[in-house]
Amino acid sequence: MLNVIPIADALGLVLEKFGSKTGRIEHVSLEKALGRYLGEETIAQEDVPAFDRSTVDGFAVRSSDLRGCSDSIPAILEKSGESIMGLAYEIPLAPGNCVYVPTGGAMPPDADSMVMLEFTEDLGGDQFAFYKPVAPGANLILRGEDLQQGEAILKSGRKLGVADIGTLAALGKTEVPVFSRPMVGIISTGDELIPPGENLKPGQIRDVNTDMLKAAVEKFNGIAISRGIVEDDYEALKESCKALILDVDVLLVSGGTSVGEKDNMPRIVTELGEMLVHGLAVKPGKPTIIGEVEGKAVFGLPGNPVAAFFIFDYLVKPLLLALQGGKVETEQVEARLSRAVSSNHGREEFILVHLEGNEAEPVPSKSGLISTVSRANAYFIIPREQEGLPKGALVKVTRL
Amino acid sequence: MLNVIPIADALGLVLEKFGSKTGRIEHVSLEKALGRYLGEETIAQEDVPAFDRSTVDGFAVRSSDLRGCSDSIPAILEKSGESIMGLAYEIPLAPGNCVYVPTGGAMPPDADSMVMLEFTEDLGGDQFAFYKPVAPGANLILRGEDLQQGEAILKSGRKLGVADIGTLAALGKTEVPVFSRPMVGIISTGDELIPPGENLKPGQIRDVNTDMLKAAVEKFNGIAISRGIVEDDYEALKESCKALILDVDVLLVSGGTSVGEKDNMPRIVTELGEMLVHGLAVKPGKPTIIGEVEGKAVFGLPGNPVAAFFIFDYLVKPLLLALQGGKVETEQVEARLSRAVSSNHGREEFILVHLEGNEAEPVPSKSGLISTVSRANAYFIIPREQEGLPKGALVKVTRL
Repeated sequence: MLNVIPIADALGLVLEKFGSKTGRIEHVSLEKALGRYLGEETIAQEDVPAFDRSTVDGFAVRSSDLRGCSDSIPAILEKSGESIMGLAYEIPLAPGNCVYVPTGGAMPPDADSMVMLEFTEDLGGDQFAFYKPVAPGANLILRGEDLQQGEAILKSGRKLGVADIGTLAALGKTEVPVFSRPMVGIISTGDELIPPGENLKPGQIRDVNTDMLKAAVEKFNGIAISRGIVEDDYEALKESCKALILDVDVLLVSGGTSVGEKDNMPRIVTELGEMLVHGLAVKPGKPTIIGEVEGKAVFGLPGNPVAAFFIFDYLVKPLLLALQGGKVETEQVEARLSRAVSSNHGREEFILVHLEGNEAEPVPSKSGLISTVSRANAYFIIPREQEGLPKGALVKVTRL
Repeated sequence: MLNVIPIADALGLVLEKFGSKTGRIEHVSLEKALGRYLGEETIAQEDVPAFDRSTVDGFAVRSSDLRGCSDSIPAILEKSGESIMGLAYEIPLAPGNCVYVPTGGAMPPDADSMVMLEFTEDLGGDQFAFYKPVAPGANLILRGEDLQQGEAILKSGRKLGVADIGTLAALGKTEVPVFSRPMVGIISTGDELIPPGENLKPGQIRDVNTDMLKAAVEKFNGIAISRGIVEDDYEALKESCKALILDVDVLLVSGGTSVGEKDNMPRIVTELGEMLVHGLAVKPGKPTIIGEVEGKAVFGLPGNPVAAFFIFDYLVKPLLLALQGGKVETEQVEARLSRAVSSNHGREEFILVHLEGNEAEPVPSKSGLISTVSRANAYFIIPREQEGLPKGALVKVTRL
């Protein structure tokens, strides 16, 4: 019999035991950094922008020169030059003068504001009329207003999004320190399994977990190293695990995790290292093993693909993110059950649902049928102490 | 002056004009299919599972043999064999017999249910006692119960997730038809721009849009072909556009899109093809061009990186997904503004916010400062007819 523990306890144990170690850091080019987790805090090494810039096409002025001007009594300024894009404008602006500056161009020294071209009138002979006063600082971005030298911008462990790539480019960071992608070994075991591409004989089924777990690992930046299907043989499986654990940070073996005669994983984990957990109080996913071998996390996942899917999502994904300095950003939404669901007292249960608006329609799922997950788009967990939930009950749903 | 149109109209035009063409379809291996858009409906070419399987370790029985049995009057059955994992069990189950079947093993013909091992007693000499009746169909999955031959499973245009990879593996689909990745050309123009890795001279700023747009394109499965920075020169920019448009499905040029002297894009688009839109009634993002050249979509995006970010998200992203048979799956959430925001009447405005729980804190943003987007995690749009929103107003927020 399995000595089951609640899944939240198992997750806590996994993160405490394996997730607190700092992952390796590597440097990647900016164009490879999207979706990776930043390895150290980003500090601006210079002011951005590095000079006062106009945000409009128009004239740089001294706002004091426009004080009190109006439609009837315009201020007349003389254009003393033009700011060229990409170049500094070195000559200070003299009182009574203005300088043309295009959007993004550098302000002349001693100018304090910009007036849009359409609010001025060309009187000829470099004379321009201004009909409205302007506030100091209007229509420009001051040096360092975006980022100041020494300012901390992006935190270590941040998952880099599209705008962050832009921010790093603005800072001149063409190489980015990111947490290395965790290496994850994947083995499927089961004498009934054949690779997906082969023809089925009676009694055989296709190995779903290898491809599914590879996809799951890669989705969260891991590098999957798959050994394919290993036969239900104690020595063969033990040797495969022993060899693969040396190359990876985390090992996932699906199948052979229960207490049957052919279930070799409990003995293998105990022999190669330490079994920390054998059995979870959850459905599906009860025959799950958490072990430590060579200081690394070994997960014995149920052979049942739906169970393997949920246990990966609940236990393995958070570890992969923790190894990259990140964490799960789950968006739970409240939804109303469109019909009652029953559950067994004493264990939690993952319930697949199809979420539409804020109505959650339970998706009937027989153990192991992975296509039922494809039919769902979210799930919720029935707590241990509840035997079921009535139609209309509010549940906290996690999107898949 | 620009003849601005509402952004929703611009999006409708983009999708109608360019998004209705069916994209190319290519076949990729299952391990490359995660996140891609399925190119045709997936049909099960066989029953899954292909045989009746046990979901427990125990005995296959005829339920009629257990009718009326109880703790005091058990049914005694003779074990006539064992089902071996991965092999069919050919011999029909005779009345009065039972066959041992492990979890996932094939059922013998004429057996109609499974009894878990722990509910039986080994009496020795292949005699086993059963103390409880069992319902026909109990503890097994029938042939085709997961998927029936000819059944449609995943729709064309579906974005393939982790469970879908599992479903395709279960169906033996090792090659998957997916929509080809759209090719997207990217050009930045502006005499003030330098590549992010170079040292800034006064008046220069780093090109943010090339790296940011490359990341955005790749996030949505596009293949980015960047030409880097092209100088603000009519002939040079026109030649670059003309050459690049031949290699791509969509061309993005940022900068030079307004009505200034140095804004070459309006003339270039008109000369090479047709300008469909020049100007959007939105802030930021007003100087946006939508054109058609060689039958392909050309976007003139504002040089301002925040504007380029929003216009990509609002107009370009939906087109990239449409070209892959997919669509934007925006998760909008209702949130309460933590303080008032003002806006100009007559145009919409993108407002960046930091969303925490259901409170949206506006993130102050001066035009063009891309790091402000990094500081936000969501945005909402102030409608055209509103001049602002008070503290506590409910807004529909889109996560970044």
